Amino acid sequence: MTNPHKVKPYLLTRSLQPENQETPIHFINNDSMENQLFYRRNHFSYPTLSYSNYWLPINGLVSAPLLLSMQDILQYPSKTVEVVLECSGDKRILFEPKIFGEQWGKGAISQGRWKGVPLRRLLELSGIGEGAKEVVVEGYDYGNRKDLDEIYTYTRSLPIEKALHPDTIIAYEYNNQPIPFKHGYPLRLIVPQWYAMASVKWIKQISVIDSTFNGPFQTIDYVYYPNQDNDKGAFPVTTININSTIQKPLDMEIINTGKHLIKGIAWTGKGVITKMEISLDGGYTWRNADILRRQNIGYGWVSWSYEWTILEKGEYTIKSRATDSFGQIQPNFPFWNKKGYGYNAIDQIKVKVE
Amino acid sequence: MTNPHKVKPYLLTRSLQPENQETPIHFINNDSMENQLFYRRNHFSYPTLSYSNYWLPINGLVSAPLLLSMQDILQYPSKTVEVVLECSGDKRILFEPKIFGEQWGKGAISQGRWKGVPLRRLLELSGIGEGAKEVVVEGYDYGNRKDLDEIYTYTRSLPIEKALHPDTIIAYEYNNQPIPFKHGYPLRLIVPQWYAMASVKWIKQISVIDSTFNGPFQTIDYVYYPNQDNDKGAFPVTTININSTIQKPLDMEIINTGKHLIKGIAWTGKGVITKMEISLDGGYTWRNADILRRQNIGYGWVSWSYEWTILEKGEYTIKSRATDSFGQIQPNFPFWNKKGYGYNAIDQIKVKVE
Repeated sequence: MTNPHKVKPYLLTRSLQPENQETPIHFINNDSMENQLFYRRNHFSYPTLSYSNYWLPINGLVSAPLLLSMQDILQYPSKTVEVVLECSGDKRILFEPKIFGEQWGKGAISQGRWKGVPLRRLLELSGIGEGAKEVVVEGYDYGNRKDLDEIYTYTRSLPIEKALHPDTIIAYEYNNQPIPFKHGYPLRLIVPQWYAMASVKWIKQISVIDSTFNGPFQTIDYVYYPNQDNDKGAFPVTTININSTIQKPLDMEIINTGKHLIKGIAWTGKGVITKMEISLDGGYTWRNADILRRQNIGYGWVSWSYEWTILEKGEYTIKSRATDSFGQIQPNFPFWNKKGYGYNAIDQIKVKVE
Repeated sequence: MTNPHKVKPYLLTRSLQPENQETPIHFINNDSMENQLFYRRNHFSYPTLSYSNYWLPINGLVSAPLLLSMQDILQYPSKTVEVVLECSGDKRILFEPKIFGEQWGKGAISQGRWKGVPLRRLLELSGIGEGAKEVVVEGYDYGNRKDLDEIYTYTRSLPIEKALHPDTIIAYEYNNQPIPFKHGYPLRLIVPQWYAMASVKWIKQISVIDSTFNGPFQTIDYVYYPNQDNDKGAFPVTTININSTIQKPLDMEIINTGKHLIKGIAWTGKGVITKMEISLDGGYTWRNADILRRQNIGYGWVSWSYEWTILEKGEYTIKSRATDSFGQIQPNFPFWNKKGYGYNAIDQIKVKVE
């Protein structure tokens, strides 16, 4: 029997063609998220694939090109990693001046456990040739771009060092289940520490090249353009920035005096979260929040909390600021860039205490 | 078999305790909405009711108090009305200065067909006494308010004239089905033309009084307070304001040159929509949009559209402005009020044409 009183959050719809829906991040409790609430980010319509006749080609600058069946892939030693996947457009809606494109709020981020075979193993089996520079991963999804005339598949490359990192995997399971179709079934590249544009879904082909790949999702999109009017100083989007989000209380919430738990999440690309600070006076003073340490956190986010006892009524600005083991700290202001990637300024909400 | 490619919108979560989730209004096509996407607005947790032993008392200033079973109610001649229900806090997030409380976007509005017995019939049966001034409708939902110490049920009154309006009904069906639990099963008051705080869910009791009801949902909430610092000039929230929403394109969307259909909805409390205008230059010039006339629209919204042929690239501000048969027209600026009710300024989005 279903409980008619059951209350649950849903994905937040940003667009339907293609499907872009974000995680209701303020209402997520689980560290490993159920797939129904995993954010969906697509460039194109969903592809059609033949599952019964699925083969993965590994070719290009290799001594022995491979054509692997799912059975082949499942037989290699597997690796399971907990990973935050964050769209590089996460929090885009907060940039000022505003930026055109998908208006992602704070929920273009999710996490869970991915299991698969290290890409390194497959590359070694195929015998990477000398001079190999990048590994190109092509997805089955394709379509028109608004700015170009041709049809493109969603294709991205990794520098050879990142492709050979032992935690870069060709995943076939999410949270102990086959990867859900919308998240890349049957095979998805998972690139920990990088923004999720790197984690190509529905893998069609893997190619080793001795040059720099210059597909539009590498050289037009997913590039930081610091200036509005020209491309000077442009550089590629790669590692996830240090970041945090306040989940509770909600922005503009009215609460009573007394005890309140301020809680949220924090994450970073390189390293681990070492300090989490909260300000209750708009950034004038800061105090440490408690970081909930978990086992096997891998590349996941951490949860944090702070018990706030409010005695005085009034309006309060609450801020959260994370620091990682490489000394990176969330800035007061975001790094504005024309396409709106990598927003990671100190998070901020307001509440009114009655 | 479910289609793994199926793409659908969901409710947009504003809070879970109590449940407040809005309709993904930009993605609604149907004029009579499926109940899964009907916005949910609660003041308290969901109540528990005995359906097997449900009785509706009608008492107070009446000559013959009634205690009606569902069977009694179903036997009276019914009336079906198509009605827009709009939370008076709809679009609150757009007020400047910002207002604390539920941050409703543009989706605290839904519509559909409600069937029930006119409240007038039940009041006549009970014999309204002389001097009857208001009809008080109490819901089963109850709980604490943040600003008061006692526990309150959700209770509202209607002036006797509105209670006797032939289209004010005690509804038991929504779109030919029993009212979904979350929307007031088994009985809900439906008050066309008024903001939806009047349409009390899970009716517990109906009382006729010879005075002015002053429960907190009548005298504290759902009151327009024009000033931040005092209650001068306060007046109650009643009739829905003339309003419109652009559904397509989406705000901050990037589109190509060529033909585009601008579409949306428009609605008003008193009267009908007579004119719908679109501006493509930020409000400098206006042109008429096409209003889609439906049969039996009742108190529903209208859909409208405008075919836009864009030849020049650049950024555009699109505005929509509705006018009704009483000459009401959407204003350039909203009427700011302390609790953030009744927002109805001209709707506005931006797009970039590439």
